[in-house]
Amino acid sequence: MIKTRNAVKTMKEYDPPTKLRAGKLRLDFNENSTGCSPKVIEKMRQITAEDLSIYPAYGELLDKICEYMDVPVSQVLATNGTDEALKCFFDTFINEKDEVIILSPSFAMFGVYADAAGADVKELLYNEDLSFPVDNLLNAISSKTRMIMFANPNNPTGTSISNDDLRKVLEKSKEFDCLVVADEAYFEFYEKSALSLIGDFDNLAITRTFSKSFGMAAVRLGFIVAKDEIIREMRKVLSPYSVNGFASTLGVVALSDIDYTKKFVAEVNKGKEILYKEFTEIGIKFFKGDANFFIANFGEDCDKIYDELKKRDILVRNRTKYPRLKNCLRIGVGSLEQTEIFLNAFKEIYTDIKGDDNE
Amino acid sequence: MIKTRNAVKTMKEYDPPTKLRAGKLRLDFNENSTGCSPKVIEKMRQITAEDLSIYPAYGELLDKICEYMDVPVSQVLATNGTDEALKCFFDTFINEKDEVIILSPSFAMFGVYADAAGADVKELLYNEDLSFPVDNLLNAISSKTRMIMFANPNNPTGTSISNDDLRKVLEKSKEFDCLVVADEAYFEFYEKSALSLIGDFDNLAITRTFSKSFGMAAVRLGFIVAKDEIIREMRKVLSPYSVNGFASTLGVVALSDIDYTKKFVAEVNKGKEILYKEFTEIGIKFFKGDANFFIANFGEDCDKIYDELKKRDILVRNRTKYPRLKNCLRIGVGSLEQTEIFLNAFKEIYTDIKGDDNE
Repeated sequence: MIKTRNAVKTMKEYDPPTKLRAGKLRLDFNENSTGCSPKVIEKMRQITAEDLSIYPAYGELLDKICEYMDVPVSQVLATNGTDEALKCFFDTFINEKDEVIILSPSFAMFGVYADAAGADVKELLYNEDLSFPVDNLLNAISSKTRMIMFANPNNPTGTSISNDDLRKVLEKSKEFDCLVVADEAYFEFYEKSALSLIGDFDNLAITRTFSKSFGMAAVRLGFIVAKDEIIREMRKVLSPYSVNGFASTLGVVALSDIDYTKKFVAEVNKGKEILYKEFTEIGIKFFKGDANFFIANFGEDCDKIYDELKKRDILVRNRTKYPRLKNCLRIGVGSLEQTEIFLNAFKEIYTDIKGDDNE
Repeated sequence: MIKTRNAVKTMKEYDPPTKLRAGKLRLDFNENSTGCSPKVIEKMRQITAEDLSIYPAYGELLDKICEYMDVPVSQVLATNGTDEALKCFFDTFINEKDEVIILSPSFAMFGVYADAAGADVKELLYNEDLSFPVDNLLNAISSKTRMIMFANPNNPTGTSISNDDLRKVLEKSKEFDCLVVADEAYFEFYEKSALSLIGDFDNLAITRTFSKSFGMAAVRLGFIVAKDEIIREMRKVLSPYSVNGFASTLGVVALSDIDYTKKFVAEVNKGKEILYKEFTEIGIKFFKGDANFFIANFGEDCDKIYDELKKRDILVRNRTKYPRLKNCLRIGVGSLEQTEIFLNAFKEIYTDIKGDDNE
C-alpha cells in the first residue's frame, strides 16, 4: 500500500454538514442569510461562455482589493476562500515539528491544516467567559513558536482581541520572528481590524473572506494582506489559477457595492440586540458576539432545542461538544425578518419544553 | 523576518501569461477555444443569490462523475482544478526529501508542487522524438521512489504512454509501494485512459479536468479517481469547500452534454490533420500530438513567428526555452474556422519571413 505521511495518517476527515440547506433559514454557517448584492447577480448574468473557457486573471480584482484595503498590490494575495490562505501559511512557513499556537474553541480548519503540516500544535483555551486568553498566550510564546493563528472576532465564541492586546502579542512574537495570522472573516460586523498594525509589524498577516457578510460563500474568495516579503513567498506556493473566474469578476462588484453589505450588518446588529434582550428576559445565559452570531447556553435543553429548530427548517450549529461550550448552540443572526421568525419559533419551542418540565 | 521553509526559499514564482486574452484567438492554453456547452450557460443563468450565499455541497456532482467514470463514490474526489489535486498528492503522501520522479518537459506545476514539498525531484527527459521515455523511467524506479507524476497525453510534447508501457511502470512501482499519478487533462482528445488499470493497481491515481475540452477553465474543476484508500487519505487534507458552487452545479451539466464536447473534439482532430498536411507541404518539422495541440519547430524563425502571430491577436505558446523544444512553438487547435484563420495568418507570416530571407 501507498504510505500516507505520518502527520496525515492519524487525522480524521473534517466533514461539516453542508448538505440540503437551500430554502431553509440558515443561521448555522454565519453566511449572509439574505444573499449577496443584487449588483453581483446582475454582473453574473453577463458572464459569457468565452469568460468561462478562459483561465482566470486577477488584475482588476487585486486593484479593487487594494483600493478597499488601502494597501499596495505587493501586499495582497487573492485565495480560494480563506481556507486556501490558511493552508498556504503552513505550506510556506511551517516545517514539520515547528511549534504553532492555535486557540480553542476556534475555526476547525486551523487545526486541520496544522495537523496536516505535522506541526507541533499548542492549543490554548479561551477564558471561561469566552474572552481572548491574552495572558496565557503571552506566556506561551517562546523562541520555539513559529506561528500563531486565530480568528478575530473568533468563531464560534464570537469574542475578540483588542488592538492593544494584539499589539502586545505582536511585539513578543516579533522578538522571536514568529508569524501572527489574524483571520478577520467577520470584519464587516466587527469593524475593527489589525490592518493598521501591518505598518509596524512585518510578522502580521490578516485574512478576509467574501463568504460571510458579502453573501458569497459558494464563490470561494478570500485574500491575505501582509508585508511584501510574506506575500512574495506565499505566491510561489499557490497555484496561479486557484481563484476561479466568477470570484475574480464578482468580487470586484461586491466591493463596489459595500453599502449593500453595510445595510445587512446594520440589521444583524439590531437583531442581536433584540435577541439579547429577549434571552435576558427569558433567563437564558448567552455570550455577546462581535460577529453575526453568538453563543447561548441552554443547559440540558440544548440538543432538544437544536432538534426542534431543525424540524422547523431553522438551522443553527450545535457546539456542545466543543471545549467551554457544553450545552451551547451557536446562533446566527440574519435580517430583522429572519430574527423574528427565529424568535417566534424559539419561544414556541422553549415554552413547550418548559411546560413539559412543569407538568 | 519570518523564516520561509527552505524548500520554498529557493523557488521562483510561476507566473503564466494569463492576462488580456479575451477576444483573441486563444491557441495558447489548450482551452476549448469555442467555449463550453450552451446548456452550461443556460444553467448558469438560473443560479440565484441564495445559491451564491451557501457553502457548496457536492453530492450531485460526485454522483455524476461516478456515472461518467463508472466508479463508486469512494473512488472519487472533486478538486479546485487539477492543480489542487496535484498538490494534494504531495500533501498527503510525500515527506521532505522523498524521491519523486517527474518528466521534462511537462506541465510546470508538477515541478512547482514537488519543489514546494521539498521532495528529492528526479527529472527524466522525454526522448528526442518527444516520445515517452519508458525505458529510462523503468530504470529510474527504485525502492527510494515514492511517487511518479506525469501527464498523459503530455503537455507540451503532446505525446503519450501506451497502457502496455504504463502497466510495466505500474508493476515496478507497485513492488516499491510507489504512487503513480497520471494527469489525464486531455483525455477527451486522446480517448484512452488508465482508468481500467485501477482495478489491478492500488498505486495508481488519475486526474481529469473541466478546463480543456469542456471549455470551463475559469470555473476551476477537476477530479481524482483512485482506489478508496488513496481517496480517503486525501480527503482529510483537502478543504471541505475548496470546489466552488459554480463548479459543482455546472460540472454536472457539462457531463450531461458530453456530445457537445465530442463535436469539438472531432473538429480539433480534423484541424490537426489539416495543419499536419500543410506543415508537411511547407516543410516545417512538427511532432504529432494526441491532445488539442502539437509542437512545431520553426528553427531560427520561432520567435519571429510567435511575435507576428501575437500582433494579429493569435496566441500560441513559445516553448523554445524548454528542454528538447528549442525553437518550438506549442500550437493549440480549435474549431475548423479557427484553424483556417490560424493557417491563413501563418502562411502570410511565413511567406513574408521567407521572402525576406531570399532578398
